[in-house]
Amino acid sequence: MISKHADLDMFFNPKSVAVVGVSRNTRKFGHVIFKNFLESSLRAEIYPVNPQIDKILGRRCYKSISDIPGPVDLVVLAIANTYVLDLVKECAQKKVRGIIIIAGGFAEIGPQGKRLEEDILKVATENNMRIIGPNVIGIYDPYSGVDTLFLPRYRLLRPKKGNIAFISQSGAFGSALLDFAASQGVGISKFISIGNALDVDAIDSLEYLEHNEETTCIMMYLEGIKAKEGRDFYEIIKRISLRKPIILLKGGITQQGQKAAASHTGSISSTIEILQAVFKQTGVIQADDALQLFDMARIFSGVILPKGKGIAIITNAGGFGVLTTDQLIKQGLNLVSLDEKTINSLKEKMPEAVTISNPMDLIGDADTERYQLALNAVLADPHVDLVILIILLSLSYVESDIIDIINDAKVNQGKPIIVTTIGGDFTQMMVRMMEENQIPTFPNPKRTVDAVKALIQYSDFCERKEECEFQ
Amino acid sequence: MISKHADLDMFFNPKSVAVVGVSRNTRKFGHVIFKNFLESSLRAEIYPVNPQIDKILGRRCYKSISDIPGPVDLVVLAIANTYVLDLVKECAQKKVRGIIIIAGGFAEIGPQGKRLEEDILKVATENNMRIIGPNVIGIYDPYSGVDTLFLPRYRLLRPKKGNIAFISQSGAFGSALLDFAASQGVGISKFISIGNALDVDAIDSLEYLEHNEETTCIMMYLEGIKAKEGRDFYEIIKRISLRKPIILLKGGITQQGQKAAASHTGSISSTIEILQAVFKQTGVIQADDALQLFDMARIFSGVILPKGKGIAIITNAGGFGVLTTDQLIKQGLNLVSLDEKTINSLKEKMPEAVTISNPMDLIGDADTERYQLALNAVLADPHVDLVILIILLSLSYVESDIIDIINDAKVNQGKPIIVTTIGGDFTQMMVRMMEENQIPTFPNPKRTVDAVKALIQYSDFCERKEECEFQ
Repeated sequence: MISKHADLDMFFNPKSVAVVGVSRNTRKFGHVIFKNFLESSLRAEIYPVNPQIDKILGRRCYKSISDIPGPVDLVVLAIANTYVLDLVKECAQKKVRGIIIIAGGFAEIGPQGKRLEEDILKVATENNMRIIGPNVIGIYDPYSGVDTLFLPRYRLLRPKKGNIAFISQSGAFGSALLDFAASQGVGISKFISIGNALDVDAIDSLEYLEHNEETTCIMMYLEGIKAKEGRDFYEIIKRISLRKPIILLKGGITQQGQKAAASHTGSISSTIEILQAVFKQTGVIQADDALQLFDMARIFSGVILPKGKGIAIITNAGGFGVLTTDQLIKQGLNLVSLDEKTINSLKEKMPEAVTISNPMDLIGDADTERYQLALNAVLADPHVDLVILIILLSLSYVESDIIDIINDAKVNQGKPIIVTTIGGDFTQMMVRMMEENQIPTFPNPKRTVDAVKALIQYSDFCERKEECEFQ
Repeated sequence: MISKHADLDMFFNPKSVAVVGVSRNTRKFGHVIFKNFLESSLRAEIYPVNPQIDKILGRRCYKSISDIPGPVDLVVLAIANTYVLDLVKECAQKKVRGIIIIAGGFAEIGPQGKRLEEDILKVATENNMRIIGPNVIGIYDPYSGVDTLFLPRYRLLRPKKGNIAFISQSGAFGSALLDFAASQGVGISKFISIGNALDVDAIDSLEYLEHNEETTCIMMYLEGIKAKEGRDFYEIIKRISLRKPIILLKGGITQQGQKAAASHTGSISSTIEILQAVFKQTGVIQADDALQLFDMARIFSGVILPKGKGIAIITNAGGFGVLTTDQLIKQGLNLVSLDEKTINSLKEKMPEAVTISNPMDLIGDADTERYQLALNAVLADPHVDLVILIILLSLSYVESDIIDIINDAKVNQGKPIIVTTIGGDFTQMMVRMMEENQIPTFPNPKRTVDAVKALIQYSDFCERKEECEFQ
């Protein structure tokens, strides 16, 4: 077995890439992947391979990998499962360093596929090659430009540069969330689809991301950890959690879900009880659903950690203040009592109808100025560690300069500010502007509070661990 | 007290409307409301009232309500709290039938405001006038064109005609959800903001909606039911639930939340234990959050009721199949085993890699045709009462003709089909097209399963009540 600490950098920063199975049919995976490489910002030689054709998209097409003149760092195999073993052998001869196997039809379909996987791994191990896949959509790196996602960009948007890394066992899950992230203006650092994880698995990916400078938090969708790797996994997430928050969504936490996962990625799940204990000990944050995974990653990428558990709510919509309070209490979180000084200073400046307490209801006619007064006073309150700012825009006088107010407050007071807002086109425009400014926004009290809870949980974990290096 | 059974039709279908407090300042509530009436499709006389000005937007402006030549059915008071009592008296002289009081500053600010409310109610009751408000954004009816929402339409979108009625105690909450609904292509039948509910309250609104033909389901945001009305409320929701599903989000279900609600709409909440029992006995569906309220209403407005609890999942994304299974099991729902016949017929037609079970994983390369085969076979299965159709579009060959397939299947097989899909621009376009076709879609397994659970809960309630008349 290759050292688990081997670097995966040939996947993300290759000097030369061959795409095998580049068809003239523009819908075929090989064609899309090759075209995306051509259009990308990657500084590398790109070679198409297909024995049937001479030229593709104006480039010479090679009959085989061995025909390629120079060295090849990375090979993307966009061909059916039955051809894979032979091509991996050819890669070995060419001294290729990394292979991405897109095709399914391996361990997840039964013993025959499992044997095929073992044969492939043997060749790779003996020849010091690393493999991502099979049964994957591969990787995406907005920094280097590597993009092996086999759907065209009009159909699957690519997120901009950001600092959330994303490891997904399921390719479809991964691509849907990337597409969604891009549409929400949320950036990522690296995406790795590990699929059947024949060689490169969650552990390798985590170790690579541990030292990746662009990555400040890691989100993962996993269906199973192989039993033999359990201990390694535990040690690694425990170590990395101290530097970068890890948010994990585990598919197959019920018996029926596990059964479904077995036929999907061939994973055998650990029992949920063991996992829960692992999460607690390691500081890993468990997401309950696809959107929650995304929400929790966003909140870590955008804000600083709170220094305590004191939460304050400022709102222009009483109803959302009430609902957010309900959600906080149900989740075991609590609202702080504001300091007398804060209350007195605000009572002088605010209209009579404003409720100066926590939640603070600035009422429907609040404008940007009233928000500024309230936000600065509440953030300056020594009892307050985090502010949930509810701004319903459709019924308000608030304009886009609220973003400057929030940015100023964030910079000057060093406490996290989380926004709740929901509405139509006007609101959506403001949400994108806030995301651009790394102000995390959520559409409803529940999603806000779920994400805030993750933030406080991690901050609490860091508080208890002296060796925590986050921020 | 006026009979609780009095009709509210003068609010939704007035022949003549006066807006009092129409300012030349285009941002003031009175101006916006008057302008929206002028631009609406409402067939009614519209009179602006303001003693200071002669003309507004090309129309003669009246000095007072009594100056208006003809009769006035509905008056919208867009003026400060201190002027309201005098104007209500003037309305009485003019024999106005309905008044909407926009201003806040009444019961929610203390005893003085409470006394003012009592004086106003006395005048209204003695003169057979009905009042909506105070502390409201009023009403919206896309069928008649009545629109007293005081924010311009570029800022607060108005939903199209639909069959979900929406009662909200909080105006800001209501307007944000209307704006959001409009942006998602979801229609509504009537919107009523009841605010302090001095006269027209949730009970009156429900009774009006009970007989409203455009309304097939009712969603409500309430912070409190006054104790003296508890019994009436119980009887009415019990009766209406048999004909139209009622989905209720209760603000203030925790002690701290109740405290916040008291300063917001002056409501005193019933204890949550009593409410839970009431929900169970009456068939009212309890939502846990703002988005869930919206989701549950959508699922009832779009689909037929399932005839049993047999759920099947069809997916092109294994991970989402696993996560949806987990959510169903956690919520106490269950996947059925497919009939042998269904399995055998599909095994003949499907590629080997497709998992013919429940969940059924059509795998990433599934196209519309494969979905059609699977959907028709699964819907025809006698064990299946409802299908959750997961279509991750960004990594697929599925095109917009999937909508025709779903529509055909819905019409021909008479079983509900609920879609889960998440992604970027391409997906969002498809989601809007599906909503146009009354196919309810949700972005993630949890929201799908929460809504499905509500549907099955109500269908179960109807099953047990012979007198249920829904559909």
